[in-house]
Amino acid sequence: MKWWGWGVDGVAFSHDDKPSLAPFVQKVIDVDLNAPAVAPLAFEELDVPASQLSEDLEKALSGVLGAEYVVSTDLDRVVHAFGKSLRDLVRIRASDLRRIPDVVVYPANEEQIVAVLDAVVAADAVLIPFGGGSNIAGSLEAPADETRQVVSLDLGRLNKVLAIDEESGLAQIQAGALGPDLEQQLGERGWTLGHFPDSFTHSSLGGWIATRSSGMQSDKYGDIADITKALRVVQPGRTLATRAVPVTSTGPSVREMILGSEGRLGVITEATVQVHRKPAKRVVLGYFFPDWKRGVAAMRAISASDATPSITRISDARETAFSFATRKSSKGFSKFMSSALIAVLKKRGWDLDQMCLSFIGYEGSEEHVARQRKLVKKIVSDHGGIGVGEGPGALYDQKKFDTPYIRDFLLDRGALADVSETSAAWSKLMPLYDTTVERANKAFAQLGVKGYIMCHLSHSYHSGACLYFTFAFKAGEGDPIAQYDVVKSAVQQSFIDSAGTLSHHHAVGTEHSRWMGDDISEAGVQMVSGIFSVVDPGRNLNPGKIVD
Amino acid sequence: MKWWGWGVDGVAFSHDDKPSLAPFVQKVIDVDLNAPAVAPLAFEELDVPASQLSEDLEKALSGVLGAEYVVSTDLDRVVHAFGKSLRDLVRIRASDLRRIPDVVVYPANEEQIVAVLDAVVAADAVLIPFGGGSNIAGSLEAPADETRQVVSLDLGRLNKVLAIDEESGLAQIQAGALGPDLEQQLGERGWTLGHFPDSFTHSSLGGWIATRSSGMQSDKYGDIADITKALRVVQPGRTLATRAVPVTSTGPSVREMILGSEGRLGVITEATVQVHRKPAKRVVLGYFFPDWKRGVAAMRAISASDATPSITRISDARETAFSFATRKSSKGFSKFMSSALIAVLKKRGWDLDQMCLSFIGYEGSEEHVARQRKLVKKIVSDHGGIGVGEGPGALYDQKKFDTPYIRDFLLDRGALADVSETSAAWSKLMPLYDTTVERANKAFAQLGVKGYIMCHLSHSYHSGACLYFTFAFKAGEGDPIAQYDVVKSAVQQSFIDSAGTLSHHHAVGTEHSRWMGDDISEAGVQMVSGIFSVVDPGRNLNPGKIVD
Repeated sequence: MKWWGWGVDGVAFSHDDKPSLAPFVQKVIDVDLNAPAVAPLAFEELDVPASQLSEDLEKALSGVLGAEYVVSTDLDRVVHAFGKSLRDLVRIRASDLRRIPDVVVYPANEEQIVAVLDAVVAADAVLIPFGGGSNIAGSLEAPADETRQVVSLDLGRLNKVLAIDEESGLAQIQAGALGPDLEQQLGERGWTLGHFPDSFTHSSLGGWIATRSSGMQSDKYGDIADITKALRVVQPGRTLATRAVPVTSTGPSVREMILGSEGRLGVITEATVQVHRKPAKRVVLGYFFPDWKRGVAAMRAISASDATPSITRISDARETAFSFATRKSSKGFSKFMSSALIAVLKKRGWDLDQMCLSFIGYEGSEEHVARQRKLVKKIVSDHGGIGVGEGPGALYDQKKFDTPYIRDFLLDRGALADVSETSAAWSKLMPLYDTTVERANKAFAQLGVKGYIMCHLSHSYHSGACLYFTFAFKAGEGDPIAQYDVVKSAVQQSFIDSAGTLSHHHAVGTEHSRWMGDDISEAGVQMVSGIFSVVDPGRNLNPGKIVD
Repeated sequence: MKWWGWGVDGVAFSHDDKPSLAPFVQKVIDVDLNAPAVAPLAFEELDVPASQLSEDLEKALSGVLGAEYVVSTDLDRVVHAFGKSLRDLVRIRASDLRRIPDVVVYPANEEQIVAVLDAVVAADAVLIPFGGGSNIAGSLEAPADETRQVVSLDLGRLNKVLAIDEESGLAQIQAGALGPDLEQQLGERGWTLGHFPDSFTHSSLGGWIATRSSGMQSDKYGDIADITKALRVVQPGRTLATRAVPVTSTGPSVREMILGSEGRLGVITEATVQVHRKPAKRVVLGYFFPDWKRGVAAMRAISASDATPSITRISDARETAFSFATRKSSKGFSKFMSSALIAVLKKRGWDLDQMCLSFIGYEGSEEHVARQRKLVKKIVSDHGGIGVGEGPGALYDQKKFDTPYIRDFLLDRGALADVSETSAAWSKLMPLYDTTVERANKAFAQLGVKGYIMCHLSHSYHSGACLYFTFAFKAGEGDPIAQYDVVKSAVQQSFIDSAGTLSHHHAVGTEHSRWMGDDISEAGVQMVSGIFSVVDPGRNLNPGKIVD
């Protein structure tokens, strides 16, 4: 894994095969992609604080794990210090490391995790669980003023699908398994979890649970909160184990307390999750709508209909323009955006600058997929939309996990970009969207920078949807993080002011923590703080996250 | 409402028009329905303990509500003392009242509830919220040794649908609204909540939320946990208010802490819930399966298929026999269980004593319903089953809310009956069923009584289902509750030993509390106890329920 950015060494975003991107970026945020890029520091240039690990704690941890799994090298400590938010990336490039872990431990099983946690609590140290390291809400970093020893617990060795209950469609999986690894293990036996967040390649089952993740096909498979049926969690002095039952009425849900707990209620070691047989047929189709309003209305109509697609996604006009700008100069693209099609749309009176690209996915038997397509086609047509076939869907499928690489590419070229997502009731969605765009643009103006904000609807529910915003701007003079904060805060404040929530699936961490009282009310904050104190009276478990 | 039994005065179960019932009951539990019934006591015969309400608290409550809404009559206090479990009914008939409320208050709005709770906490009294009073887990009764004043807070005046967000399919409804009342208010505007528990006519929205209720059409509409999108809850010193968003990743779910909290985390005053347009078409069809095993396998196959029925229900052979015994001597019945059909089934080699009756419901457009029926028909047929049309479904629809009346009728005639439900993974369901039937029969043998246990699968999920058991036996000599405890405990212990949960939708109360450590582990019990202590340090809110 790259210590300075997204993904694995040797893989990077390139615009060489995307001829429209440089002009587009130049136009919208005034950044020249062809100018020389500023490469990140060499690792040796980082100013890595010395480990504060005591001899006693090192001995205790080595006694549990063996010395080779108790690692205090600079590289391991830096890799485990951060997630992958813009804030993280900027800070690491500026060698602004602050309170990085003193040691990284790699336990092999739950028994070792129990012993590690015992040792950490006995030493009054801090334990931060680490899955794939892809978090963008600041959930992985120790507080800057933490005076105690900081232990990062990497769950990477707990990566097995332990059992599949084929009759029940349930798999018992260790929390450290990363997306591709667990899908491969399940796939060998004909199953899928169906959970594909953008971070899929670099995020783990335990991380998804700890942050209430959603995936691209969650409309069909459910969010991770729906998928997770039972949990095992190592806590100070005890281990929580819930039963793998579909539904229970046994009081307040402890399962739903662990979901989204970001390590503050213990180390998730294992979960029993719903799995599905791979569908006979799977297809993602592209559609165009004349404008955002009609496109979103179509998504709402689909959610209220008998149709049950696996993906309902629509980009606003600005994100549609960005998608077009990232296209490769290939036949695949020109096939669906042919001059003939453009002529048809113009004839229909479309303003192509307002046009919105949508993807709708279908899974199931051939017959089921055919029927869903038919139901959706009618709704799309009723809303002025038009189907453009499998071409764009196939492109979407290919590119879906590449997006995070773009941010590093832009950062190398002086552009700051990040994302914020929310959910709201259908009736609140359009005002929320308008307010958010307006506030972001005000923030750009305040900073005196050229900025761009674009959005897609990523998930539909009966009563509302998730809106996923991406913003980017050319960094001005001075502290880039201060500039980022102006835009990010404006966007989050707009969510709160517009009856949205702080985050639909990226969690709270430290990034969204200050709005928690607005989101779940002060009484809710008291309840969340309270359960943290009950389970972890010594504040040894990832302190400072969610509520402080 | 009857103080001594289920439902409203003047409505009762009768076997006069059900010629097969008396012989059936005689055969299976040796009770003669034609023998003279023992009527409950007259209310005047009850030994009602005097109210311990202090003058100070009475003044404080009257100051908030007005004197007419602060009621200490014996009848109000007795009606609010219990739910409707067999234990409750037997005790009330024996005038074994113990610690009934000292006063019943009837607030009109949330503001008054805040003031009532302030007064209760200031007086160090106990507050027990009361919705429809249908609970069967002992959630409504104060501990027998409670020395503080006990206030029952009846939410009956908070019964309005406050607003419908038609664009989002969300309704804001006060917690005291009973099923028929809220469905009528929604129905007037073309909407339905789609939540129809057996207790529907005598249970409230707040009660459903406080106990994690499920309804007959929850396969389609979701359990109340899925339906409830936002909550308002009055707690000591503060009011919790969550946002009506479809999904959020803002930490441990406070919404899911309130769900199932049985009054221990405050008074639920209002919820925002998903509502649906009334479907164009709704039909419940009957099916027969040659045996329980194949019938349950068919339900599993349906849940794994592309079909999405609104009801999946199948009775075991014993419950099927009971259903047949409660049939009216009408054409409706003979139409679907004709001698011609019986001849066909015999020709197919069916053992009619093993035959199982199933109901499957469909909702949506005409076309959607037709397609679902076709998908299900194939699966039913693959499992050896046969469709018998709309006749039995119509009967099921008519009778669905009458079942609770039977218990009082049986009790008048010396038979003890109650229910226990659980959920488990599909792979655990058959062993759980077998073990539970065996344990119940052992319990009957131990008591030396003639008993009967029957079961239906009431809800299907991707990974498992709810099994709903009903047991009955002729009371032997001595304490009926001690006998009931032997059977009830055997059933609950079987759930725990067989990888089920204590309750799928009836909650914990005091009835299931002692198994909570087995169900959610001791660490889970600590978390639940902990959150109660955080919100309610004085133990003023319905103490002793769920965990103690």
